[in-house]
Amino acid sequence: DLVKLCCDFFTPQQPLLAGVNVVITAGPTQEAIDPVRYISNHSSGKMGFSLANAALSMGANVTVIAGPVNLSLAADIKRIDVKSARDMHQAALASLDTADIFIACAAVADYRTETVHSEKMKKQADTDVITLTLVKNPDIIADVANAENRPFCVGFAAETNDIEAYALGKLARKNLDLIAANDVSNSAQGFNSDNNALTVFAKDKRFDIPLCNKKEVAIQLLKIISEQYKSIS
Amino acid sequence: DLVKLCCDFFTPQQPLLAGVNVVITAGPTQEAIDPVRYISNHSSGKMGFSLANAALSMGANVTVIAGPVNLSLAADIKRIDVKSARDMHQAALASLDTADIFIACAAVADYRTETVHSEKMKKQADTDVITLTLVKNPDIIADVANAENRPFCVGFAAETNDIEAYALGKLARKNLDLIAANDVSNSAQGFNSDNNALTVFAKDKRFDIPLCNKKEVAIQLLKIISEQYKSIS
Repeated sequence: DLVKLCCDFFTPQQPLLAGVNVVITAGPTQEAIDPVRYISNHSSGKMGFSLANAALSMGANVTVIAGPVNLSLAADIKRIDVKSARDMHQAALASLDTADIFIACAAVADYRTETVHSEKMKKQADTDVITLTLVKNPDIIADVANAENRPFCVGFAAETNDIEAYALGKLARKNLDLIAANDVSNSAQGFNSDNNALTVFAKDKRFDIPLCNKKEVAIQLLKIISEQYKSIS
Repeated sequence: DLVKLCCDFFTPQQPLLAGVNVVITAGPTQEAIDPVRYISNHSSGKMGFSLANAALSMGANVTVIAGPVNLSLAADIKRIDVKSARDMHQAALASLDTADIFIACAAVADYRTETVHSEKMKKQADTDVITLTLVKNPDIIADVANAENRPFCVGFAAETNDIEAYALGKLARKNLDLIAANDVSNSAQGFNSDNNALTVFAKDKRFDIPLCNKKEVAIQLLKIISEQYKSIS
Protein backbone atom coordinates (compact mmCIF):
# COMPACT_ATOMS: atom_id res chain seq x y z
CA ASP A 1 0.00 0.00 0.00
CA LEU A 2 0.94 3.64 -0.31
CA VAL A 3 1.94 4.08 3.33
CA LYS A 4 4.34 1.15 3.14
CA LEU A 5 5.79 2.45 -0.12
CA CYS A 6 6.35 5.86 1.46
CA CYS A 7 7.89 4.33 4.56
CA ASP A 8 10.23 2.22 2.45
CA PHE A 9 11.18 5.28 0.46
CA PHE A 10 12.13 7.31 3.50
CA THR A 11 13.86 4.50 5.39
CA PRO A 12 17.58 4.53 4.73
CA GLN A 13 18.69 1.47 2.78
CA GLN A 14 19.55 -1.35 5.16
CA PRO A 15 23.27 -1.98 5.20
CA LEU A 16 22.87 -5.47 3.76
CA LEU A 17 26.55 -6.32 4.14
CA ALA A 18 27.29 -4.57 7.44
CA GLY A 19 30.51 -5.97 8.89
CA VAL A 20 30.90 -8.61 6.18
CA ASN A 21 34.43 -8.98 4.77
CA VAL A 22 34.24 -8.96 0.98
CA VAL A 23 37.27 -9.65 -1.24
CA ILE A 24 36.96 -8.80 -4.94
CA THR A 25 39.44 -9.47 -7.74
CA ALA A 26 39.18 -7.02 -10.62
CA GLY A 27 40.71 -6.08 -13.95
CA PRO A 28 42.92 -8.16 -16.23
CA THR A 29 46.22 -9.82 -15.42
CA GLN A 30 49.35 -9.24 -17.47
CA GLU A 31 51.68 -12.12 -18.26
CA ALA A 32 55.10 -10.82 -19.31
CA ILE A 33 56.79 -12.16 -22.44
CA ASP A 34 59.75 -9.81 -21.97
CA PRO A 35 60.13 -6.31 -20.46
CA VAL A 36 57.99 -4.71 -23.20
CA ARG A 37 55.62 -7.44 -24.42
CA TYR A 38 52.83 -9.21 -22.56
CA ILE A 39 49.72 -11.34 -22.92
CA SER A 40 46.53 -10.02 -21.36
CA ASN A 41 42.75 -10.15 -21.44
CA HIS A 42 40.23 -7.46 -22.26
CA SER A 43 38.96 -6.09 -18.96
CA SER A 44 38.59 -2.48 -17.91
CA GLY A 45 38.06 -3.41 -14.26
CA LYS A 46 34.82 -1.37 -14.25
CA MET A 47 32.59 -4.24 -13.13
CA GLY A 48 34.88 -5.26 -10.24
CA PHE A 49 35.42 -1.68 -9.12
CA SER A 50 31.65 -0.99 -9.26
CA LEU A 51 31.12 -4.07 -7.09
CA ALA A 52 33.71 -2.81 -4.60
CA ASN A 53 32.16 0.63 -4.31
CA ALA A 54 28.66 -0.85 -4.03
CA ALA A 55 29.75 -3.35 -1.35
CA LEU A 56 31.28 -0.48 0.63
CA SER A 57 28.01 1.46 0.43
CA MET A 58 26.23 -1.63 1.80
CA GLY A 59 28.44 -1.66 4.87
CA ALA A 60 31.02 -4.29 3.91
CA ASN A 61 34.74 -4.22 4.69
CA VAL A 62 36.09 -4.36 1.15
CA THR A 63 39.44 -5.53 -0.23
CA VAL A 64 40.15 -5.27 -3.96
CA ILE A 65 42.93 -7.28 -5.58
CA ALA A 66 43.38 -5.35 -8.82
CA GLY A 67 45.24 -6.10 -12.01
CA PRO A 68 46.56 -3.15 -14.07
CA VAL A 69 43.62 -0.78 -14.61
CA ASN A 70 43.16 2.99 -14.85
CA LEU A 71 40.48 3.36 -12.19
CA SER A 72 40.30 4.66 -8.65
CA LEU A 73 38.49 3.35 -5.58
CA ALA A 74 36.88 4.92 -2.52
CA ALA A 75 39.53 5.59 0.14
CA ASP A 76 37.91 3.18 2.60
CA ILE A 77 38.58 0.22 0.32
CA LYS A 78 41.81 -1.73 0.80
CA ARG A 79 43.52 -2.04 -2.58
CA ILE A 80 46.21 -4.58 -3.46
CA ASP A 81 47.73 -3.99 -6.92
CA VAL A 82 49.07 -7.00 -8.80
CA LYS A 83 50.18 -7.77 -12.36
CA SER A 84 50.32 -11.48 -13.09
CA ALA A 85 47.88 -14.30 -12.34
CA ARG A 86 50.41 -15.80 -9.93
CA ASP A 87 50.63 -12.50 -8.01
CA MET A 88 46.82 -12.37 -7.86
CA HIS A 89 46.64 -16.01 -6.75
CA GLN A 90 49.04 -15.34 -3.90
CA ALA A 91 47.16 -12.21 -2.77
CA ALA A 92 43.84 -14.08 -2.96
CA LEU A 93 45.02 -16.95 -0.77
CA ALA A 94 46.53 -14.48 1.68
CA SER A 95 43.11 -12.79 2.02
CA LEU A 96 41.28 -15.96 3.13
CA ASP A 97 41.92 -15.62 6.85
CA THR A 98 39.26 -12.95 7.10
CA ALA A 99 37.21 -13.22 3.89
CA ASP A 100 33.49 -13.99 4.22
CA ILE A 101 32.63 -13.49 0.57
CA PHE A 102 35.06 -13.82 -2.34
CA ILE A 103 34.03 -12.41 -5.72
CA ALA A 104 36.34 -13.37 -8.58
CA CYS A 105 35.60 -10.68 -11.14
CA ALA A 106 39.09 -10.37 -12.64
CA ALA A 107 39.79 -11.61 -16.15
CA VAL A 108 42.71 -13.81 -15.21
CA ALA A 109 45.02 -15.12 -17.92
CA ASP A 110 44.64 -18.91 -18.02
CA TYR A 111 48.15 -19.26 -19.40
CA ARG A 112 51.47 -17.50 -18.97
CA THR A 113 54.64 -17.76 -21.00
CA GLU A 114 56.90 -20.57 -19.89
CA THR A 115 59.94 -18.26 -20.00
CA VAL A 116 60.02 -14.53 -19.30
CA HIS A 117 62.94 -12.96 -21.13
CA SER A 118 64.82 -10.43 -19.01
CA GLU A 119 65.81 -8.34 -22.03
CA LYS A 120 63.65 -7.20 -24.93
CA MET A 121 63.53 -10.00 -27.51
CA LYS A 122 64.84 -8.73 -30.84
CA LYS A 123 62.94 -9.42 -34.01
CA GLN A 124 64.50 -12.43 -35.73
CA ALA A 125 65.66 -11.38 -39.19
CA ASP A 126 66.00 -14.91 -40.45
CA THR A 127 62.66 -16.34 -39.40
CA ASP A 128 59.12 -15.11 -39.92
CA VAL A 129 57.52 -17.50 -37.44
CA ILE A 130 58.20 -17.96 -33.74
CA THR A 131 56.44 -20.15 -31.23
CA LEU A 132 55.57 -19.14 -27.71
CA THR A 133 55.22 -21.91 -25.16
CA LEU A 134 52.47 -21.22 -22.64
CA VAL A 135 51.88 -23.02 -19.36
CA LYS A 136 48.74 -23.08 -17.24
CA ASN A 137 48.32 -20.52 -14.49
CA PRO A 138 46.92 -21.51 -11.07
CA ASP A 139 43.11 -21.45 -10.92
CA ILE A 140 42.45 -18.71 -8.35
CA ILE A 141 38.73 -19.17 -7.69
CA ALA A 142 38.98 -22.97 -7.64
CA ASP A 143 41.81 -22.83 -5.09
CA VAL A 144 39.87 -20.32 -2.97
CA ALA A 145 36.71 -22.44 -3.15
CA ASN A 146 38.63 -25.56 -2.12
CA ALA A 147 40.49 -23.92 0.75
CA GLU A 148 39.84 -25.33 4.23
CA ASN A 149 38.15 -22.22 5.58
CA ARG A 150 36.46 -21.29 2.31
CA PRO A 151 34.45 -18.06 1.99
CA PHE A 152 31.18 -17.81 0.03
CA CYS A 153 32.49 -17.99 -3.54
CA VAL A 154 31.18 -16.05 -6.52
CA GLY A 155 32.72 -16.59 -9.94
CA PHE A 156 32.29 -14.89 -13.29
CA ALA A 157 32.03 -16.47 -16.70
CA ALA A 158 32.68 -14.22 -19.68
CA GLU A 159 31.61 -16.27 -22.65
CA THR A 160 31.04 -15.78 -26.33
CA ASN A 161 28.85 -18.86 -26.87
CA ASP A 162 26.95 -21.64 -25.04
CA ILE A 163 26.84 -19.35 -22.02
CA GLU A 164 24.49 -21.28 -19.72
CA ALA A 165 26.21 -24.62 -20.29
CA TYR A 166 29.70 -23.19 -19.64
CA ALA A 167 28.50 -21.26 -16.58
CA LEU A 168 26.82 -24.26 -14.96
CA GLY A 169 29.84 -26.43 -15.75
CA LYS A 170 32.16 -23.90 -14.12
CA LEU A 171 29.87 -23.55 -11.06
CA ALA A 172 30.03 -27.30 -10.41
CA ARG A 173 33.63 -27.97 -11.45
CA LYS A 174 35.07 -25.15 -9.34
CA ASN A 175 32.81 -25.70 -6.34
CA LEU A 176 31.29 -22.19 -6.42
CA ASP A 177 28.21 -20.88 -4.65
CA LEU A 178 27.18 -18.50 -7.42
CA ILE A 179 28.36 -17.73 -10.92
CA ALA A 180 27.58 -14.55 -12.87
CA ALA A 181 27.65 -15.11 -16.61
CA ASN A 182 27.81 -12.49 -19.32
CA ASP A 183 27.84 -12.64 -23.06
CA VAL A 184 30.95 -10.76 -24.15
CA SER A 185 30.17 -11.32 -27.83
CA ASN A 186 27.61 -8.51 -27.36
CA SER A 187 29.56 -5.24 -27.51
CA ALA A 188 26.77 -3.38 -25.63
CA GLN A 189 27.92 -5.11 -22.45
CA GLY A 190 31.09 -6.34 -20.76
CA PHE A 191 34.75 -5.39 -21.37
CA ASN A 192 35.15 -1.64 -21.85
CA SER A 193 31.43 -0.91 -21.91
CA ASP A 194 29.81 1.05 -19.07
CA ASN A 195 26.87 -1.36 -19.17
CA ASN A 196 26.44 -4.99 -18.42
CA ALA A 197 23.77 -7.70 -18.25
CA LEU A 198 24.24 -10.81 -16.15
CA THR A 199 22.61 -14.15 -15.61
CA VAL A 200 23.43 -15.43 -12.14
CA PHE A 201 23.30 -19.15 -11.44
CA ALA A 202 23.21 -20.98 -8.11
CA LYS A 203 23.06 -24.78 -8.16
CA ASP A 204 19.26 -24.74 -8.41
CA LYS A 205 18.37 -21.08 -8.99
CA ARG A 206 18.70 -18.52 -11.71
CA PHE A 207 18.51 -14.70 -11.53
CA ASP A 208 18.50 -12.30 -14.47
CA ILE A 209 19.96 -8.81 -14.21
CA PRO A 210 18.91 -6.94 -17.34
CA LEU A 211 21.22 -4.62 -19.29
CA CYS A 212 21.95 -1.47 -17.33
CA ASN A 213 24.78 0.66 -15.94
CA LYS A 214 27.52 -1.39 -14.23
CA LYS A 215 26.93 0.55 -10.98
CA GLU A 216 23.29 -0.59 -10.94
CA VAL A 217 24.27 -4.13 -12.00
CA ALA A 218 26.73 -4.19 -9.09
CA ILE A 219 24.01 -3.28 -6.57
CA GLN A 220 21.62 -5.90 -7.93
CA LEU A 221 24.31 -8.59 -7.96
CA LEU A 222 25.35 -7.78 -4.38
CA LYS A 223 21.72 -8.04 -3.25
CA ILE A 224 21.55 -11.54 -4.75
CA ILE A 225 24.92 -12.45 -3.21
CA SER A 226 23.91 -11.11 0.19
CA GLU A 227 20.63 -13.09 0.16
CA GLN A 228 22.29 -16.34 -0.89
CA TYR A 229 25.17 -15.81 1.54
CA LYS A 230 22.75 -15.33 4.45
CA SER A 231 20.61 -18.30 3.42
CA ILE A 232 23.53 -20.70 3.79
CA SER A 233 25.45 -19.15 6.69
CA ASP B 1 71.86 41.22 -23.57
CA LEU B 2 68.93 42.09 -21.36
CA VAL B 3 66.97 43.90 -24.05
CA LYS B 4 67.18 40.89 -26.37
CA LEU B 5 66.21 38.51 -23.56
CA CYS B 6 63.17 40.63 -22.79
CA CYS B 7 62.20 40.88 -26.44
CA ASP B 8 62.50 37.10 -26.85
CA PHE B 9 60.41 36.62 -23.75
CA PHE B 10 57.57 38.78 -25.00
CA THR B 11 57.62 37.56 -28.60
CA PRO B 12 55.10 34.77 -29.18
CA GLN B 13 56.82 31.48 -29.93
CA GLN B 14 57.45 31.12 -33.64
CA PRO B 15 55.14 28.53 -35.14
CA LEU B 16 58.03 26.28 -36.15
CA LEU B 17 55.80 23.79 -37.95
CA ALA B 18 53.26 26.19 -39.52
CA GLY B 19 51.42 24.41 -42.31
CA VAL B 20 53.52 21.23 -42.03
CA ASN B 21 51.56 17.94 -42.14
CA VAL B 22 52.71 15.75 -39.27
CA VAL B 23 51.53 12.14 -38.85
CA ILE B 24 52.20 10.46 -35.49
CA THR B 25 51.56 6.86 -34.48
CA ALA B 26 50.97 6.40 -30.75
CA GLY B 27 50.14 3.83 -28.10
CA PRO B 28 50.45 0.06 -28.27
CA THR B 29 48.86 -2.31 -30.76
CA GLN B 30 46.75 -5.26 -29.70
CA GLU B 31 47.08 -8.59 -31.50
CA ALA B 32 44.04 -10.77 -30.81
CA ILE B 33 44.47 -14.38 -29.75
CA ASP B 34 40.69 -14.84 -29.43
CA PRO B 35 37.82 -12.48 -28.48
CA VAL B 36 39.09 -12.07 -24.90
CA ARG B 37 42.87 -12.61 -25.06
CA TYR B 38 45.53 -10.58 -26.81
CA ILE B 39 49.24 -9.85 -27.02
CA SER B 40 50.33 -6.26 -26.53
CA ASN B 41 53.20 -3.98 -25.56
CA HIS B 42 53.55 -1.63 -22.62
CA SER B 43 52.74 1.86 -23.90
CA SER B 44 50.46 4.42 -22.37
CA GLY B 45 50.46 6.58 -25.52
CA LYS B 46 51.53 9.58 -23.41
CA MET B 47 54.67 10.33 -25.43
CA GLY B 48 52.87 10.17 -28.81
CA PHE B 49 49.92 12.22 -27.58
CA SER B 50 52.28 14.82 -26.06
CA LEU B 51 54.04 15.05 -29.43
CA ALA B 52 50.69 15.53 -31.19
CA ASN B 53 49.56 18.32 -28.87
CA ALA B 54 52.98 20.00 -29.07
CA ALA B 55 53.05 19.78 -32.89
CA LEU B 56 49.59 21.40 -33.00
CA SER B 57 50.81 24.24 -30.77
CA MET B 58 53.69 24.76 -33.23
CA GLY B 59 51.27 25.26 -36.11
CA ALA B 60 51.32 21.79 -37.71
CA ASN B 61 48.35 19.94 -39.21
CA VAL B 62 48.41 16.85 -37.05
CA THR B 63 47.08 13.33 -37.63
CA VAL B 64 47.39 10.72 -34.89
CA ILE B 65 47.06 7.01 -35.65
CA ALA B 66 46.37 5.64 -32.19
CA GLY B 67 46.30 2.15 -30.76
CA PRO B 68 44.05 1.45 -27.75
CA VAL B 69 44.84 4.11 -25.12
CA ASN B 70 42.84 6.00 -22.49
CA LEU B 71 43.86 9.51 -23.56
CA SER B 72 42.22 12.41 -25.33
CA LEU B 73 43.57 14.82 -27.92
CA ALA B 74 42.94 18.46 -28.81
CA ALA B 75 39.87 18.72 -31.06
CA ASP B 76 41.90 20.13 -33.96
CA ILE B 77 43.91 16.93 -34.26
CA LYS B 78 42.69 14.26 -36.68
CA ARG B 79 42.53 10.95 -34.83
CA ILE B 80 42.41 7.51 -36.43
CA ASP B 81 41.84 4.71 -33.89
CA VAL B 82 43.25 1.28 -34.71
CA LYS B 83 43.88 -1.95 -32.82
CA SER B 84 46.30 -4.25 -34.60
CA ALA B 85 49.66 -3.58 -36.24
CA ARG B 86 48.12 -4.39 -39.62
CA ASP B 87 45.37 -1.78 -39.08
CA MET B 88 48.04 0.75 -38.12
CA HIS B 89 50.19 -0.16 -41.14
CA GLN B 90 47.24 0.39 -43.47
CA ALA B 91 46.34 3.75 -41.87
CA ALA B 92 49.99 4.84 -42.01
CA LEU B 93 50.38 4.09 -45.73
CA ALA B 94 47.06 5.82 -46.42
CA SER B 95 48.38 8.97 -44.73
CA LEU B 96 51.42 9.31 -47.01
CA ASP B 97 49.76 11.37 -49.76
CA THR B 98 49.93 14.44 -47.59
CA ALA B 99 52.45 13.64 -44.82
CA ASP B 100 55.56 15.84 -44.57
CA ILE B 101 56.86 14.38 -41.31
CA PHE B 102 56.07 10.89 -39.99
CA ILE B 103 56.82 10.13 -36.35
CA ALA B 104 56.50 6.44 -35.42
CA CYS B 105 56.03 6.63 -31.66
CA ALA B 106 53.69 3.63 -31.30
CA ALA B 107 54.89 0.45 -29.62
CA VAL B 108 53.90 -1.84 -32.46
CA ALA B 109 53.76 -5.59 -31.84
CA ASP B 110 56.44 -7.20 -34.02
CA TYR B 111 54.48 -10.44 -34.12
CA ARG B 112 50.81 -11.41 -34.24
CA THR B 113 49.20 -14.80 -33.71
CA GLU B 114 49.02 -16.87 -36.87
CA THR B 115 45.37 -17.76 -36.16
CA VAL B 116 42.77 -15.61 -34.40
CA HIS B 117 40.12 -17.83 -32.84
CA SER B 118 36.60 -16.50 -33.35
CA GLU B 119 35.34 -18.00 -30.08
CA LYS B 120 36.97 -17.86 -26.66
CA MET B 121 39.52 -20.70 -26.44
CA LYS B 122 38.65 -22.97 -23.53
CA LYS B 123 41.30 -24.05 -21.11
CA GLN B 124 42.51 -27.53 -22.07
CA ALA B 125 41.91 -29.85 -19.15
CA ASP B 126 44.19 -32.54 -20.49
CA THR B 127 47.26 -30.48 -21.27
CA ASP B 128 49.22 -28.00 -19.21
CA VAL B 129 51.24 -26.60 -22.08
CA ILE B 130 50.07 -24.97 -25.29
CA THR B 131 52.06 -23.35 -28.05
CA LEU B 132 51.12 -20.18 -29.81
CA THR B 133 52.46 -19.68 -33.31
CA LEU B 134 53.37 -16.08 -34.05
CA VAL B 135 54.08 -14.55 -37.44
CA LYS B 136 55.86 -11.29 -38.24
CA ASN B 137 53.83 -8.12 -38.59
CA PRO B 138 54.57 -5.61 -41.37
CA ASP B 139 57.27 -3.08 -40.45
CA ILE B 140 55.36 0.22 -40.50
CA ILE B 141 58.20 2.75 -40.28
CA ALA B 142 60.39 0.82 -42.74
CA ASP B 143 57.56 0.69 -45.29
CA VAL B 144 56.83 4.39 -44.80
CA ALA B 145 60.52 5.28 -45.14
CA ASN B 146 60.82 3.25 -48.32
CA ALA B 147 57.67 4.59 -49.95
CA GLU B 148 58.11 6.47 -53.21
CA ASN B 149 57.01 9.84 -51.84
CA ARG B 150 58.53 9.35 -48.42
CA PRO B 151 58.04 11.93 -45.67
CA PHE B 152 60.78 12.93 -43.20
CA CYS B 153 60.89 9.82 -41.00
CA VAL B 154 61.40 9.72 -37.25
CA GLY B 155 61.54 6.38 -35.45
CA PHE B 156 61.67 5.41 -31.80
CA ALA B 157 63.77 2.73 -30.18
CA ALA B 158 62.67 1.54 -26.73
CA GLU B 159 65.52 -0.58 -25.53
CA THR B 160 66.60 -2.26 -22.35
CA ASN B 161 70.27 -2.69 -23.26
CA ASP B 162 72.91 -1.66 -25.83
CA ILE B 163 70.77 1.36 -26.62
CA GLU B 164 73.08 3.34 -28.91
CA ALA B 165 74.08 0.33 -30.99
CA TYR B 166 70.47 -0.80 -31.53
CA ALA B 167 69.30 2.75 -32.27
CA LEU B 168 72.01 3.40 -34.88
CA GLY B 169 71.39 -0.01 -36.43
CA LYS B 170 67.66 0.71 -36.71
CA LEU B 171 68.30 4.21 -38.15
CA ALA B 172 70.39 2.75 -41.00
CA ARG B 173 68.45 -0.48 -41.61
CA LYS B 174 65.08 1.24 -41.79
CA ASN B 175 66.27 4.26 -43.77
CA LEU B 176 65.19 6.82 -41.14
CA ASP B 177 66.14 10.49 -40.84
CA LEU B 178 66.11 10.53 -37.04
CA ILE B 179 65.71 8.02 -34.28
CA ALA B 180 64.78 8.80 -30.67
CA ALA B 181 66.07 6.18 -28.25
CA ASN B 182 65.03 5.66 -24.67
CA ASP B 183 66.08 3.27 -21.97
CA VAL B 184 62.92 1.50 -20.84
CA SER B 185 64.80 -0.52 -18.25
CA ASN B 186 64.76 2.71 -16.19
CA SER B 187 61.32 2.92 -14.58
CA ALA B 188 61.65 6.70 -14.10
CA GLN B 189 61.09 7.15 -17.84
CA GLY B 190 59.12 5.61 -20.68
CA PHE B 191 55.99 3.39 -20.61
CA ASN B 192 53.48 4.59 -18.05
CA SER B 193 55.74 7.23 -16.58
CA ASP B 194 54.94 10.92 -17.05
CA ASN B 195 58.61 11.58 -17.67
CA ASN B 196 61.03 10.59 -20.36
CA ALA B 197 64.64 11.13 -21.45
CA LEU B 198 65.72 10.66 -25.05
CA THR B 199 68.87 10.45 -27.07
CA VAL B 200 68.17 11.45 -30.65
CA PHE B 201 70.43 10.22 -33.43
CA ALA B 202 70.74 11.45 -37.00
CA LYS B 203 73.26 9.74 -39.29
CA ASP B 204 76.06 12.01 -38.07
CA LYS B 205 74.56 13.93 -35.16
CA ARG B 206 73.44 13.27 -31.64
CA PHE B 207 71.13 15.28 -29.36
CA ASP B 208 70.39 14.61 -25.69
CA ILE B 209 67.06 15.49 -24.12
CA PRO B 210 67.46 15.12 -20.35
CA LEU B 211 64.82 13.54 -18.10
CA CYS B 212 61.77 15.76 -17.82
CA ASN B 213 58.01 15.82 -18.27
CA LYS B 214 56.85 14.17 -21.53
CA LYS B 215 55.20 17.46 -22.60
CA GLU B 216 58.56 19.24 -22.38
CA VAL B 217 60.37 16.31 -24.02
CA ALA B 218 57.83 16.53 -26.87
CA ILE B 219 58.57 20.23 -27.46
CA GLN B 220 62.32 19.67 -27.44
CA LEU B 221 62.07 16.69 -29.78
CA LEU B 222 59.86 18.61 -32.20
CA LYS B 223 62.37 21.49 -32.26
CA ILE B 224 65.09 19.01 -33.26
CA ILE B 225 62.80 17.40 -35.84
CA SER B 226 61.80 20.77 -37.27
CA GLU B 227 65.44 21.89 -37.61
CA GLN B 228 66.55 18.67 -39.26
CA TYR B 229 63.48 18.59 -41.51
CA LYS B 230 64.16 22.14 -42.72
CA SER B 231 67.86 21.46 -43.24
CA ILE B 232 67.16 18.72 -45.77
CA SER B 233 64.00 20.02 -47.49
